[in-house]
Amino acid sequence: MDHAYLVADNVYLQLRYQRYAIGIIGHFFQRPPKRIRRFSQNKKDISRKDAKNRNRFTPRRNSLWIPLGRNYADYKKGEKDRMKILMTGGAGFIGTNLCNELRSRGNKVIACDLYNTDRDDYIRCDVRNYRQIEKVFEEHGSFDYVYHLAAEYGRWNGEAYYENLWQTNVIGLKHILRLQEKHKFRMISFSSAEVYGDYEGEMTEAVMVENKIKDTYQMNDYAISKWAGELMCLNSAQMFGTETVRVRPVNCYGPHEEYTPYRGFIPKFIFHCLHGKPYTVYKGHKRIIDYVEDTCKTFANIVDNFILGEVYNVGGRSEWEMDIKEYSDLILEATGANKSLVTYREAEPFTTKVKTMDFSKAVRDLKHNPEVDPREGIKRTVEWMKWFYRI
Amino acid sequence: MDHAYLVADNVYLQLRYQRYAIGIIGHFFQRPPKRIRRFSQNKKDISRKDAKNRNRFTPRRNSLWIPLGRNYADYKKGEKDRMKILMTGGAGFIGTNLCNELRSRGNKVIACDLYNTDRDDYIRCDVRNYRQIEKVFEEHGSFDYVYHLAAEYGRWNGEAYYENLWQTNVIGLKHILRLQEKHKFRMISFSSAEVYGDYEGEMTEAVMVENKIKDTYQMNDYAISKWAGELMCLNSAQMFGTETVRVRPVNCYGPHEEYTPYRGFIPKFIFHCLHGKPYTVYKGHKRIIDYVEDTCKTFANIVDNFILGEVYNVGGRSEWEMDIKEYSDLILEATGANKSLVTYREAEPFTTKVKTMDFSKAVRDLKHNPEVDPREGIKRTVEWMKWFYRI
Repeated sequence: MDHAYLVADNVYLQLRYQRYAIGIIGHFFQRPPKRIRRFSQNKKDISRKDAKNRNRFTPRRNSLWIPLGRNYADYKKGEKDRMKILMTGGAGFIGTNLCNELRSRGNKVIACDLYNTDRDDYIRCDVRNYRQIEKVFEEHGSFDYVYHLAAEYGRWNGEAYYENLWQTNVIGLKHILRLQEKHKFRMISFSSAEVYGDYEGEMTEAVMVENKIKDTYQMNDYAISKWAGELMCLNSAQMFGTETVRVRPVNCYGPHEEYTPYRGFIPKFIFHCLHGKPYTVYKGHKRIIDYVEDTCKTFANIVDNFILGEVYNVGGRSEWEMDIKEYSDLILEATGANKSLVTYREAEPFTTKVKTMDFSKAVRDLKHNPEVDPREGIKRTVEWMKWFYRI
Repeated sequence: MDHAYLVADNVYLQLRYQRYAIGIIGHFFQRPPKRIRRFSQNKKDISRKDAKNRNRFTPRRNSLWIPLGRNYADYKKGEKDRMKILMTGGAGFIGTNLCNELRSRGNKVIACDLYNTDRDDYIRCDVRNYRQIEKVFEEHGSFDYVYHLAAEYGRWNGEAYYENLWQTNVIGLKHILRLQEKHKFRMISFSSAEVYGDYEGEMTEAVMVENKIKDTYQMNDYAISKWAGELMCLNSAQMFGTETVRVRPVNCYGPHEEYTPYRGFIPKFIFHCLHGKPYTVYKGHKRIIDYVEDTCKTFANIVDNFILGEVYNVGGRSEWEMDIKEYSDLILEATGANKSLVTYREAEPFTTKVKTMDFSKAVRDLKHNPEVDPREGIKRTVEWMKWFYRI
């Protein structure tokens, strides 16, 4: 009876959640697709190129067995508590929004970040220190998924505080990978569109595979550290079979992004406008921005659409592309700030003029579907900043 | 009269040392070559691709003025004390040999490394700590050249001790770059042929420019850290005009390489043979090895043939390529060890079978000319190891 119950439950879970779900009958007959089967019959021939396709088939998640790191009792709590997730950098900008999104879907999310906070389901942990991450696993047990967001962010921040950058973005990630090899959780590793360097064509994910090396020489330590991190994920998958999806967010903005001089142009302009501080706009730079709540829906969808080894650009709609000056104009309008705050200058040195990104892969695999356009998103961000800075 | 003396001396120095020396008459008429001139007239247009060519012309070194960081009195000491050089990692394997070579040419060389030693012209300095490097500059003043060899070496060492690897190879290098931006010395930065990943074709320096990114995905943290370091050198040159030559040594071996389990196959085999310890030989891996005294002559030649922004593979003659088993046989012969120490296995996983390197650029620019063939080099290395380990 118990077994029947387990099976029925499994069928439900498969139909509800699994990408390759084929039901309980199929379970006993299921075989990998032909192309994949070839690889598993001759493991020695698996090169990195093949490994990606091989990983597209994920039998463990299609089996009767419940996912690793969870027990049946946990499952029985039902849909409302369906995945146990660790979020490093969980008190940061994207981390805070992503915690909200994943929790609203009924997942159990433990956040960790650099400092002690007043938050629930939160634990202080600096990913530069292996012991502190290990302690999180000791206290909370294993996780189904780890969203690894903890990072030093931004090119100028990375140039100024390069010790912190490398220790966090690379050594911290390696700590997580070592724990992944041990605990076998699935990871979503956060990279950046900066890995494309000053590539001038359309940035599809394939650029970092097929293009010439010189096309994407990374231009600063932040970018180099993010590309180094991606290679480390690929190597760990190759050598230890760890399961990771990489994402490259592009100009994400919105609530919970506290201003520092190293932030992107949107929070910078808004903060300056709200505080009557002058700022500079470099002309001739085009960008697509993406409202964080949209981005986080896509990131949260990865749990239901996890394709091992894949990498995704995630950003706004290409039809939303605007000149940075136009964004500044929207912000001046939304904040009602004095237009004389702005100084206009010619193109900024060492900064890409136009970044044309392709997001079709995230649309296809992750149901990426940005809905909040820049005008609306900026309005909401201004409201949040007014609230946060008590203006 | 003093001026005439200075000019005469300068002519001599130019003729003796400078790549582009054109004598005292030419000095007053010299202009950059046409293509270069264009760049300096329109600095805004200098892209990374152009920067390399621009840097080939080095007017500072052709002028009447003596090189930066030295004074005339230093020069007057004559040829015997011609350059002031800092060598990080100067107590290591290549560092020790390179100090010997550069000193034998009359240069003033200060070595630094992790530990206190009994050596002269040596100062303890861990490049992970900015303060300790800065202290070297405070105590010894500026340098004409810095050979930056301090690094965690080897793929398995890097996987086991990745914290040390990233802190030394990347943060340490960045410290040096920051000091270079300030003190304007010329740097020779030591990378590795590991940056080519498991590229299967002939590894020319152009591979890391023109080839597809996937061709050279670096396979381990050591390799990634070395490629990250190269990009950091390029970026610093681009943004701050620092002057660096990168080198990629390949399977260098010889005296002063103390054995650890993370060393290459040559010292490993010799050490095991001398101590009667068994070892494993993986069949079907071909390598070219390069005797360290030959390599160091080439590295020392860079001072006289410094072409900004260049990068060089440095290794043995392609006609010396052998199977690792053949090297093992030579070592068994040279040490007289019992042949039963060796276990033969099939190809090692995650390790490139054949590495075909091209060294013609180093031959052309740096007068690279390996003379000690593997049979002779291994004999000398065995002698050194016998002496070092008191066998």
